[in-house]
Amino acid sequence: MKVRRAVITAAARNQRAIPLQMMFDRDGRQKPVINIIVEETLSAGVEDIGIVVCPEDEAAYKEAAGEHAGRLSFFHQCEPLGYGHAVYCAREFTGDEPFLHLISDHVYVSSGDAGCARQLVEVAEGRSCSVSGVQATRENLLPYFGAVGGRRVPGTKDLYQIEQVVEKPTPTEAEQTLAVPGLRAGHYLCFFGMHVLSPTVMEILGRHVEAGKGERPVLLSPVLDELARREQYLALEAKGRRYPVDVRYGLLYAQLAMALSGRDREEVLAGVCELLAQRELAGAGEGRK
Amino acid sequence: MKVRRAVITAAARNQRAIPLQMMFDRDGRQKPVINIIVEETLSAGVEDIGIVVCPEDEAAYKEAAGEHAGRLSFFHQCEPLGYGHAVYCAREFTGDEPFLHLISDHVYVSSGDAGCARQLVEVAEGRSCSVSGVQATRENLLPYFGAVGGRRVPGTKDLYQIEQVVEKPTPTEAEQTLAVPGLRAGHYLCFFGMHVLSPTVMEILGRHVEAGKGERPVLLSPVLDELARREQYLALEAKGRRYPVDVRYGLLYAQLAMALSGRDREEVLAGVCELLAQRELAGAGEGRK
Repeated sequence: MKVRRAVITAAARNQRAIPLQMMFDRDGRQKPVINIIVEETLSAGVEDIGIVVCPEDEAAYKEAAGEHAGRLSFFHQCEPLGYGHAVYCAREFTGDEPFLHLISDHVYVSSGDAGCARQLVEVAEGRSCSVSGVQATRENLLPYFGAVGGRRVPGTKDLYQIEQVVEKPTPTEAEQTLAVPGLRAGHYLCFFGMHVLSPTVMEILGRHVEAGKGERPVLLSPVLDELARREQYLALEAKGRRYPVDVRYGLLYAQLAMALSGRDREEVLAGVCELLAQRELAGAGEGRK
Repeated sequence: MKVRRAVITAAARNQRAIPLQMMFDRDGRQKPVINIIVEETLSAGVEDIGIVVCPEDEAAYKEAAGEHAGRLSFFHQCEPLGYGHAVYCAREFTGDEPFLHLISDHVYVSSGDAGCARQLVEVAEGRSCSVSGVQATRENLLPYFGAVGGRRVPGTKDLYQIEQVVEKPTPTEAEQTLAVPGLRAGHYLCFFGMHVLSPTVMEILGRHVEAGKGERPVLLSPVLDELARREQYLALEAKGRRYPVDVRYGLLYAQLAMALSGRDREEVLAGVCELLAQRELAGAGEGRK
């Protein structure tokens, strides 16, 4: 199995502008968030990238892509029919091949030698199956993520056999069905925003899209739940962290994490400490308002 | 004297997209940087705002302005003929009235009760003359700013009579001509990016634009230098700080300063400290790369 294509979804109606925000990457180069995500997939060995966008955003994304524009194909999600439907919009692009899939509103800071997407692709190619990135996530964050249940693959420290997938489970639901032996209490394996998916996913998606009749949104988690029952499907705790940029102060934290793990680490650490000191002095001198 | 109009310049060719970046304001509301600047001018009592843009950017700025769109007029700078020329593009809008002028790539965090622009307007209206915001700035930052020379207005702590204006002076030039009695050694009064300017400025600009014949850029500092020789012209050290968003990591520092002085102070301070701790642990555990 060889992963040659990637699909990035960027058609969510409420946060379309976020992937076009500028930030500095680990090498201190300023670029749009979408390019940082594109480069994450390229560093995983992918050759061609499909981006699913609202039709009216294609021009802005194309302009933002700059040097990478030649590797990108655009696919339109014309109606807000859900995340699963957005992935399905790239079905002709992926054909009968496995594909790497990233969402467009997270950036990743790897703590290993390889980028997070590369870690995922290596496991998928080595084991010839679908692999989803996961991160052990505290119970209070369950409302924001899809979560997986399963058990550790014997002889590994970071790999799990996925048995089921539940979108935004309640704490009770999670406790009853998603507890994974070996994780800290109150922690669950939640999606990391990147997956390597076998072509079976497009087949299952096709059925869900047809059943939805364009009347209700098609989610991805139920499709991945079905995948887990049909094929070998693993979860990898990648070495690194995800930083969602579409949440409150997400871009601030993402930029800070990226800078602190990169070339400009010392400069930015000094700048942030100076600013904290200034603001503290300002607060102390003038009385908090 | 009453300041009813403001001119914001946003036509610099290299950083046009920066004012359209999203950030969270002191009240924790996400909005484009340009709107934070627009609101700074509105809080100073201004009623109408002229924005000077590249023609092709007008639509994006109009969309970004949202609820403020009705107060904005757009003026086009069709060729990159300099900062002074950009201000001059709004001459019909300001007519024979004084106007508040802000650049579009700084945000301001006031440490007083009133916003920085309001502090400036209050002095200008009270003393019926042009007033430029300044900040005591270390010598090493002189290459980034216009600087003023002059002397403190007797009986005040933060007000200076401007005698001359020099754009990006060398340290030697600054030491010889711009030393201001009472400032810390090695510090000079550099522009803050906001001014209240009398109509005389447009008249002087008109001569400079004509002399430039569209062949060389027209700067603002030589015009303000001329203003200082013709009229009463003051500098105010406003209570607050400027955060340029167009420099390396500028948006990171601006967002952090804004958040730490606002509603979400505790939340963001905790988030930043947690992230610093995580990154330090990551660095310590894996060896720095």
